[in-house]
Amino acid sequence: MAESLPVRFGILGCANIARKVSRAIALAPNALISAIGSRSIEKATAYAKENGYPSTTKIYGSYEAVLDDPEVDAVYVPLPTSLHVKWAVLAAQKKKHVLLEKPVALNVKELDVILEECESNGVQYMDATMWMHHPRTAKMKEFLSDSHRFGHLKSVHSTFAYLGDTEFLKNDIRVKADLDALGALGDAGWYSIRAILWITDYELPKTVTALRDPELNEAGVILSCGASLSWKDGRIATFYCSFLTNMAMDIVASGSKGNLRVHDFVIPFQENVAPFYTVEDSRFGELATAIHPVPSEQQVGTDLPQEALMVKEFSNLVGSIKGKGSKPDKKWPTISRKTQLVVDAVKASIEKGFETVEVIY
Amino acid sequence: MAESLPVRFGILGCANIARKVSRAIALAPNALISAIGSRSIEKATAYAKENGYPSTTKIYGSYEAVLDDPEVDAVYVPLPTSLHVKWAVLAAQKKKHVLLEKPVALNVKELDVILEECESNGVQYMDATMWMHHPRTAKMKEFLSDSHRFGHLKSVHSTFAYLGDTEFLKNDIRVKADLDALGALGDAGWYSIRAILWITDYELPKTVTALRDPELNEAGVILSCGASLSWKDGRIATFYCSFLTNMAMDIVASGSKGNLRVHDFVIPFQENVAPFYTVEDSRFGELATAIHPVPSEQQVGTDLPQEALMVKEFSNLVGSIKGKGSKPDKKWPTISRKTQLVVDAVKASIEKGFETVEVIY
Repeated sequence: MAESLPVRFGILGCANIARKVSRAIALAPNALISAIGSRSIEKATAYAKENGYPSTTKIYGSYEAVLDDPEVDAVYVPLPTSLHVKWAVLAAQKKKHVLLEKPVALNVKELDVILEECESNGVQYMDATMWMHHPRTAKMKEFLSDSHRFGHLKSVHSTFAYLGDTEFLKNDIRVKADLDALGALGDAGWYSIRAILWITDYELPKTVTALRDPELNEAGVILSCGASLSWKDGRIATFYCSFLTNMAMDIVASGSKGNLRVHDFVIPFQENVAPFYTVEDSRFGELATAIHPVPSEQQVGTDLPQEALMVKEFSNLVGSIKGKGSKPDKKWPTISRKTQLVVDAVKASIEKGFETVEVIY
Repeated sequence: MAESLPVRFGILGCANIARKVSRAIALAPNALISAIGSRSIEKATAYAKENGYPSTTKIYGSYEAVLDDPEVDAVYVPLPTSLHVKWAVLAAQKKKHVLLEKPVALNVKELDVILEECESNGVQYMDATMWMHHPRTAKMKEFLSDSHRFGHLKSVHSTFAYLGDTEFLKNDIRVKADLDALGALGDAGWYSIRAILWITDYELPKTVTALRDPELNEAGVILSCGASLSWKDGRIATFYCSFLTNMAMDIVASGSKGNLRVHDFVIPFQENVAPFYTVEDSRFGELATAIHPVPSEQQVGTDLPQEALMVKEFSNLVGSIKGKGSKPDKKWPTISRKTQLVVDAVKASIEKGFETVEVIY
């Protein structure tokens, strides 16, 4: 099979998170940075230099110019959420494949506009949920899918929280009602909701009920919240997300036969190796004075960081479309939409005074 | 200070859990087994022999006889919950100190009858929540109380679940509506609720909301359920308890500055040493590609198992009352009552279709 040409990325804006993804594009074997656009060409120039962009990178003073560049195959969109619908739609219309930072949209209605535009223009869509691409994730799924070891899922709890400092809580886009209106729910909660859906094989919950009394800032943006999710067969999930708590990135999944625990699921403590913990067939010792076995640690190494694996996977899909005329993969838009549906349901439940909300695809 | 005489225990019934506590009484330096009563004297005789009771132990064919024995200072009551109010009240009236197995009562109204009788008769009351007495619990509390390391509590999740086998789910007293009507909520949920109250320094939550759709058996007894608890300052807690899930005994507490995790809080994996995990001041690495520090494990050893430390603590209090005319300690009845109040609130919320219930002391 002939090697296809690397996918040429355009970067929209000079967001902090784009530094990490730019490095990932450089690391991925099938991608390269071709262009960056910012409203300020000076800013883009400095950014490209600081982040070691190739000397061939084209620097533009607008996002449009990136979209108009025929040497750009795909765009990475790390703009504030409120701008996603405009720029992702425009990108699709210009036949650029779209790697979209999360939260992907302010609500599913907006996301549907993006997804429909991507579909009708035949471009690949993927949200930038990096941990999905770590080989640990596949290893954990192997355990969760093992009916002898894990059995069937009964309950799962996930937390993603980190402590925003004074500057963050005052000025970050994630606490601004006009930029990332979903606050901690869209930023941190997105990951826990995705984790819960990932564990349930993307079966949407029947109901979502927000936990009482989320913390809001003066503009009404969520700084911490949580919810419980229920499925019709008795499975339940809970999650908590926050900008006001020391960092935690936990999944604790209980199956009928085993348990899985991970404490750094979003970003591994170390870049090249990531742990998780399993235990199965736990039993009380004599007189119930001990429990065996003790949970065991599994370590999963990776040559490429998870964000580079994400870029590689996205570029593989783009390469297949470009090189072989394949159709865009449906998995990524589908799970992105399901995640957004649950985000929306949590928000609706909060707005309705913590009423239970049904989730319908 | 003169050594006081050991506290002489009478055991009511031949429950399986009493085997563990009998060993604990033998191990505690200030307690001994003086008598056992069962409705069947043959059963009690065999039980005493099997469990290595001292040859001096008096064997009775009724519970009453134990309560009438002047050489019994205190009773351990491992009877089904529905019998607690009768036998704990009678014990208190006979001036026997009461170590009461959990769940302590079917509801707080019943518990109040027990507590009032203990108070008016000047006898010590304690519920048999063993993990409270492990030195690990005090060590964890040190961390949780450290404003520099843990900061203030923001959220906590606890799970206590274990897998009941076919025999358990059919015949155990914990699934019988007429014996332990609180099912998994009273048995396993009790521990998670206690853990949550322990972490909040026993400040009752403002509200309790049951998670939707607990699993019930044919008699309507709870086999799995959960709830969220909220305090007026934005603190939240969630818990899940079950007889249908592989064993999990987790507390995951998030503070503003640090986190605490423990995976065997009810019964340590090993009897003589117990781990917990802390992390503080977690930060993203360069480009948010890693997180440091990694949580660290603390191991806490103990010479006596936690249930023997429970008997020792209870016997110390009894010894002070007997030897020095001290008043019964109020801490234990108070936290037992608060735990029961939350159990009751979860049950009420389930019965009201998952409505939010206020908790009032």
